[in-house]
Amino acid sequence: MKTAHSTQTHVPMINAARLSTRLHAMAQIGATGNGGVNRQALTAEDTSGRRLLLEWAAGRGYTSAVDPIGNLYIRRPGIRPELSPVMTGSHLDSQPTGGNYDGVFGVLAGLEVLETLDDFGVATERPLELVVWMNEEGSRFSPPTMGSAVAAGAIPLDRALATLDRNGVNVGEALAMQMAELPPLAARPLDARGYAYIEAHIEQGPILEDENCDIGIVSGIQGLHAYQVEVRGAEAHAGTTPLRHRKDALVAAMSLIARIRSEIADPLDVLRFTVGKFEVAPGASSTVPGKVTFLIDLRHPDPEHLAQTGAKILRLCSGQVENCGVSAKVLLQSTPVQFDEKVVAVVREATARRQLKSMRMISGATHDAKYMAGHTPTAMIFVPCEKGISHNEAEHARDEDLAAGAQILCDAMLAVMSVEKN
Amino acid sequence: MKTAHSTQTHVPMINAARLSTRLHAMAQIGATGNGGVNRQALTAEDTSGRRLLLEWAAGRGYTSAVDPIGNLYIRRPGIRPELSPVMTGSHLDSQPTGGNYDGVFGVLAGLEVLETLDDFGVATERPLELVVWMNEEGSRFSPPTMGSAVAAGAIPLDRALATLDRNGVNVGEALAMQMAELPPLAARPLDARGYAYIEAHIEQGPILEDENCDIGIVSGIQGLHAYQVEVRGAEAHAGTTPLRHRKDALVAAMSLIARIRSEIADPLDVLRFTVGKFEVAPGASSTVPGKVTFLIDLRHPDPEHLAQTGAKILRLCSGQVENCGVSAKVLLQSTPVQFDEKVVAVVREATARRQLKSMRMISGATHDAKYMAGHTPTAMIFVPCEKGISHNEAEHARDEDLAAGAQILCDAMLAVMSVEKN
Repeated sequence: MKTAHSTQTHVPMINAARLSTRLHAMAQIGATGNGGVNRQALTAEDTSGRRLLLEWAAGRGYTSAVDPIGNLYIRRPGIRPELSPVMTGSHLDSQPTGGNYDGVFGVLAGLEVLETLDDFGVATERPLELVVWMNEEGSRFSPPTMGSAVAAGAIPLDRALATLDRNGVNVGEALAMQMAELPPLAARPLDARGYAYIEAHIEQGPILEDENCDIGIVSGIQGLHAYQVEVRGAEAHAGTTPLRHRKDALVAAMSLIARIRSEIADPLDVLRFTVGKFEVAPGASSTVPGKVTFLIDLRHPDPEHLAQTGAKILRLCSGQVENCGVSAKVLLQSTPVQFDEKVVAVVREATARRQLKSMRMISGATHDAKYMAGHTPTAMIFVPCEKGISHNEAEHARDEDLAAGAQILCDAMLAVMSVEKN
Repeated sequence: MKTAHSTQTHVPMINAARLSTRLHAMAQIGATGNGGVNRQALTAEDTSGRRLLLEWAAGRGYTSAVDPIGNLYIRRPGIRPELSPVMTGSHLDSQPTGGNYDGVFGVLAGLEVLETLDDFGVATERPLELVVWMNEEGSRFSPPTMGSAVAAGAIPLDRALATLDRNGVNVGEALAMQMAELPPLAARPLDARGYAYIEAHIEQGPILEDENCDIGIVSGIQGLHAYQVEVRGAEAHAGTTPLRHRKDALVAAMSLIARIRSEIADPLDVLRFTVGKFEVAPGASSTVPGKVTFLIDLRHPDPEHLAQTGAKILRLCSGQVENCGVSAKVLLQSTPVQFDEKVVAVVREATARRQLKSMRMISGATHDAKYMAGHTPTAMIFVPCEKGISHNEAEHARDEDLAAGAQILCDAMLAVMSVEKN
């Protein structure tokens, strides 16, 4: 075996066919029949996915462990086992109608890195670790990125274990059921710190495809505010009530949203303002709406811009609009995360060496890397996905893009070992 | 007993206390606890309401019958049973969050007329009939005024019976269940024709109150067009998708409605434009809406104005709006209805004789009287309701106004017998 830095003669090349085969195998587990998967956290399907991954890992002699919240750690030893590991990871759980790449790609790209190093006989000073985070999606148990949040101390373990799904099953019970179905795993304390963490993921947006880029060098995750707005008018008969007498909550809500959109308009198109949930009551064709409730999802990479925009929205959503009362409450105010510039530079240099077309970008979606960044130098690698479609069974990414992403992950995990920490 | 025309010595006076007591009793059936009722067509609550009415009718010896679509007919015999009856009627079904007067007042005012004539020992040449129409509101089974439409031949019986509610129960099944719970009723063919039809109803609008009038002499019903509009965009991730890339169906729908409102604006405030049902899919906070479906309710008393406005709306609802596809379909195009001027005159003269302040008006809401007017000389009597609030649990009408309306109904039903038909 050779160490990664001692020679340039063997540049480890990942096995694109193996990666593709494994992505297809994983897509069978929880397949919905409509091109996607339903493999929600700690379900039987999630257990099957983890079992398959553990079999592949055991086949190469890697050791596996689990922490108290159900994050799996698959370890390839280093020459100096006392050193902290270089880590990668993502998730195997999916949305109820999820795609075949969201999360899975990062996990299988990580496994591919470990195996590639074995294929090429490369020994590394530091151990390598692949983490499979518990419940990234948050669709069965809320909130999302639960496993990485607990490992980072952002959510107390007890509270996470007590989280109920809609059938009244809690995370602790569901996790115990999963563990009973998996091969015995070493217990590991709740500590996910490493020398560095690099996560590969599909972009879940259209920017890389639009810019004709192979790789996104992800320098951070934008912040997210969520607000619930209520507009209160008065129900009235649609046939009899003159417009001047009405307190039409729908008309007021539309006017309010138009005003917000106009006042926060961002010519750079970096700000993300979305009203995705919008409910009109009582919802009868011949009744003037008495109440509208809607959610605002607001994101921006710059914490100050986000805070100012959020405050402006809250001001607009109070008092009276078009004869109706308006109020808003804050559901979530999560600040933007900046990744480690040294690790980001390692990813950028890796794409340059491979002569791939890349761009620096901010992640619009949240990821487990957000919590890793709190305690471990972190970056992410994005690969394009078709039309940016994700959280959708039609999600698709090309084999060559996935292979390029796995290769950059491999190169960057090796290169980051020689970077001195700040 | 005396015949109505043979003497002026006994002017039958309705019993306001009895009417009020019965309105309160009926308001208990399906009471929501918030001041209103949920007594939708052919539900257990509707059955209970009909059972109570049938008990009151049987207590006075009136005979009851039901037609194949579930309209109830309560008959007080005439001296000459071969003559066609003078009819009144309304409905006992309510909106899901309905008030205590909409429909119920007309039914109980009709019963009050029959009983008053008995109290005063008045025999009439013609029979009197009180009809309780099936499914006036259309909230459980669409469309509204179903029973009167079927009786008038405007909707085929088979189609009406096959209409499904949101749980997949059809009208025929629900009606059979109701019949099994009611005392046995004589079957009556599908024919609601009478000598005249006069329906009493709360105004459901603010005009009588604004004009300080006791009685509205209703000369017709404005026309109603209903359209279903679909706006098709594309679902996308709220965090990752730049606004310029979005096909946000909610943004497009709001822009479309604002444009329609601006282009059809009526400075006279006679046109009624309402979007009461408005549904956003998939309705997830972090997903850009892919589809919006909404209903337009459009009303105007002038048939040409209504037709032109409807055509303008259909033009605006086709093609592309803000990057999304838009299409509309016509659910209903009901032209304005003119009531019979002789029957309208009878109502006007009755209010004059009682020295009540009245005004001629067009009904903004639709009523079963619309279909009756197609085959039987028809008019309506409106009484004021507080602030015009209706289709709302806060709906309220004053006892003295309700009593005045019932008295005019009584007077007009007697007087109309001596009017010769055209």
